[in-house]
Amino acid sequence: MTPYYAVIFTSILYTTTKGYEKMAQQMEELAKKQSGFLGISSARNDIGITVSYWNNEQAILDWKANVDHQLAQKLGREKWYASYKIEIARVERTYEFSKKIKAL
Amino acid sequence: MTPYYAVIFTSILYTTTKGYEKMAQQMEELAKKQSGFLGISSARNDIGITVSYWNNEQAILDWKANVDHQLAQKLGREKWYASYKIEIARVERTYEFSKKIKAL
Repeated sequence: MTPYYAVIFTSILYTTTKGYEKMAQQMEELAKKQSGFLGISSARNDIGITVSYWNNEQAILDWKANVDHQLAQKLGREKWYASYKIEIARVERTYEFSKKIKAL
Repeated sequence: MTPYYAVIFTSILYTTTKGYEKMAQQMEELAKKQSGFLGISSARNDIGITVSYWNNEQAILDWKANVDHQLAQKLGREKWYASYKIEIARVERTYEFSKKIKAL
């Protein structure tokens, strides 16, 4: 399956608001409809890390340019994020472990 | 600074135990002493995502082979992890945003 692409989005919020959570959920639903989307994982406590997975770099550029996503990015910078970092990475190798009780 | 390497470690625990947290902290301290280590970010709620950053692939292989880390990996598979996935990725582009109030 490799190589594929990962977008690592690391963020710090001012506060977690209802508005933010709703928008994050909407964006996840929208990303899933994009061509080339492979999957997404998120976790948050002090910082948030969201990793989205894509078939190729063009799919990432298309998602970045999506009009509704552009608006969400603008709102995020104005209202919710103290800071964030986005890293575009080419996944070259993977390892998996599972006790086959509960899958990732 | 690109290209550099990211190890994306996504995991599901049976339960969060004191033993796990202590080991995770020890491994983070140990990783920081490795040659080629650049940084680490972690977040956990339902799933855990830890991204560690490295200068090159050799640094990642050296860390994987570290004897204390090998023991921690073994304990993790036996005691703490229901499942995990490790992805080795080459970071090619980055974007950053900050309101310069609280840095990542």
